[in-house]
Amino acid sequence: MTELNDSNQASLNGPCQFELLATDAETSARRGRLTTRRGVIETPVFMPVGTQGTVKGLLPEQLLELGAQVILGNTYHLYLRPGHELVQRLGGLHRFMHWDKPILTDSGGFQVFSLGDLRKIDEEGVRFQSHLDGSAHTLTPESSIAIQEALGSDIMMVFDECIPYPADRKYVVASTARSSRWAERSKQARRDPSASLFGIVQGGMDPELRRQSAEQIVSLGFDGYALGGLSVGEEAAVMYDVMDWTLPLLPVEQPRYVMGVGTPENLVEAVARGADMFDCVMPTRNARNGVMFTSTGKVSIKQARYRDDEAPVDAACGCYTCRHYSRAYLRHLYQSHEILASVLNTIHNLYYYHSLMRQMRDAIAAGTFGSFRTIFYQQRSLAGGA
Amino acid sequence: MTELNDSNQASLNGPCQFELLATDAETSARRGRLTTRRGVIETPVFMPVGTQGTVKGLLPEQLLELGAQVILGNTYHLYLRPGHELVQRLGGLHRFMHWDKPILTDSGGFQVFSLGDLRKIDEEGVRFQSHLDGSAHTLTPESSIAIQEALGSDIMMVFDECIPYPADRKYVVASTARSSRWAERSKQARRDPSASLFGIVQGGMDPELRRQSAEQIVSLGFDGYALGGLSVGEEAAVMYDVMDWTLPLLPVEQPRYVMGVGTPENLVEAVARGADMFDCVMPTRNARNGVMFTSTGKVSIKQARYRDDEAPVDAACGCYTCRHYSRAYLRHLYQSHEILASVLNTIHNLYYYHSLMRQMRDAIAAGTFGSFRTIFYQQRSLAGGA
Repeated sequence: MTELNDSNQASLNGPCQFELLATDAETSARRGRLTTRRGVIETPVFMPVGTQGTVKGLLPEQLLELGAQVILGNTYHLYLRPGHELVQRLGGLHRFMHWDKPILTDSGGFQVFSLGDLRKIDEEGVRFQSHLDGSAHTLTPESSIAIQEALGSDIMMVFDECIPYPADRKYVVASTARSSRWAERSKQARRDPSASLFGIVQGGMDPELRRQSAEQIVSLGFDGYALGGLSVGEEAAVMYDVMDWTLPLLPVEQPRYVMGVGTPENLVEAVARGADMFDCVMPTRNARNGVMFTSTGKVSIKQARYRDDEAPVDAACGCYTCRHYSRAYLRHLYQSHEILASVLNTIHNLYYYHSLMRQMRDAIAAGTFGSFRTIFYQQRSLAGGA
Repeated sequence: MTELNDSNQASLNGPCQFELLATDAETSARRGRLTTRRGVIETPVFMPVGTQGTVKGLLPEQLLELGAQVILGNTYHLYLRPGHELVQRLGGLHRFMHWDKPILTDSGGFQVFSLGDLRKIDEEGVRFQSHLDGSAHTLTPESSIAIQEALGSDIMMVFDECIPYPADRKYVVASTARSSRWAERSKQARRDPSASLFGIVQGGMDPELRRQSAEQIVSLGFDGYALGGLSVGEEAAVMYDVMDWTLPLLPVEQPRYVMGVGTPENLVEAVARGADMFDCVMPTRNARNGVMFTSTGKVSIKQARYRDDEAPVDAACGCYTCRHYSRAYLRHLYQSHEILASVLNTIHNLYYYHSLMRQMRDAIAAGTFGSFRTIFYQQRSLAGGA
């Protein structure tokens, strides 16, 4: 695996540097390059999710071959098992999982808030019970950053609350204000100057609260900025509204990360609105459930219509799975609960996601993002696809 | 993947050819080469089991890299799902699963007899209920061969009964005689002259019945001979006795396959007694249960003692898993029910099995099999290993 070379390290002034290489004339789409201590990330970029120290089913070498530049680690899961102190003693998450490219870690907030009745929020942080054994824990901005630093994260996220949707406006106001205070505490808690720290804009689905949050978070000063609280059940139109209101309020010269998003359509629309970084469990989780993304829409491989189908999942796809296996074989593996079903489907879906991002990067650089977007939707509607 | 070249095809006179390259001076160990229509198999050889059209968790390219020369397909499973006719329509099992090296198929007998109350044997064959949906089916010598030919098997096995252990002598006599009649019907049923067909010696754990079976099966004339009915719960000493009685009765110039065997020790002892081919679910199934084979014995990776263990599973091992991952990481993956646990453990165990076979092939060729065997046991006893 490629190591970060000395010239990159020498050129790095601060924990990371973002370069804007091109901007689209008609939309807000941007082609950028984020340089971190563990290498360069070409943006717009999709980051596969490696919750428990592994992107489910794939070897790191397979991820690299698929085009992964950076992966996500989950603070909540790794804190509970195997424990961040153990990971630190063993040389950090990169060495533990044999991945030497950049790792972005979430703050643990999203998972903790998903626990529902098992957690209790106050100003200090969140008390919660482990989903594994019911044991009691507390996560605060300070402990979240300490855990992320122990893991050896290259891009850390501030501890915040991901607000449910729909939510009472009073709750959104209070939660967003608290998340801003937690962002400040997260920044104060940071010890390692070579790891980046990103702020997160909350504010629910309210333009005024999003604006307030963006101003507060930007005024604190971070290495990059994220939109949190999206992909929580809202309509796509609402998600795009939030991006339209909020992304223009973030500094042009810094990377913008839309958390937990999304479908291929969501990614195209978010890029058009000026977002640079994405993560989502969709390609990997759907793969394990037999749902594959293709140029003409989704394919649910378990369907009986594919029983005898000699064709690859996507005739237009150049991935390992599509080059070597029929839909009939993939359906057979899925029906037989074979491990290889998850492996082959994940290879296809991550290849699709990474190819989509590469096409967008190329189109923005070539000044053809508009026609890319038009063709992207034409392929889907011609096929009557999902 | 390497295709069989023309010169190999041209030199093949009959469905397969076996060449004895070297024999050990002190034991009956043999170094051989079996040439089939889909390539050469260096013996002694271990054949990974690919029950449902996949060696669980691995890509064909990974199998090749681990040293697999031939894999096993299971007639019973593939007949029920996805069905041999579908596999045939899609170009055969090799194309279906993207494996162009030799495939050996069992006859389905072993699985059918394992069904217990769900099956009924008579002279014609076996009526049974599918373990998947309870549907009624019949497997006969004729249908077993037809299924194996439809799958495109390179080495087919005659349909026989794998006798349980312990068993009443009267039952063993009757079953062994019937298996001989079924072997003859299997031979008659063969249509494809380019695929090999192996006979199977039964006879339980009785020297006289094994001798009778060997004589009957050899007199029918097959491309190779197997010992069936081993690894069914008998002591290792009993298994070795059966090999001692039976292997010398088989033609020296043809390949000898000991079915369903076994542990690393079993393989060393069987090779010493003149066996050439082996299959067993042990390395792959144990891998999925977190049990790894090493030069000093077995390692159960789930044990708490490995929680902090920075060392690889086997410091003497050169496999991908041991080169890149600690016991602590493998334990974490296993505890977290991650797919990658099965993948990495299977890579290690199959590497171990294939390396063991390669070491034996090299030792026989070099005339050092005796000292190989001594050192093999010394490593285990020094480590106090399993």
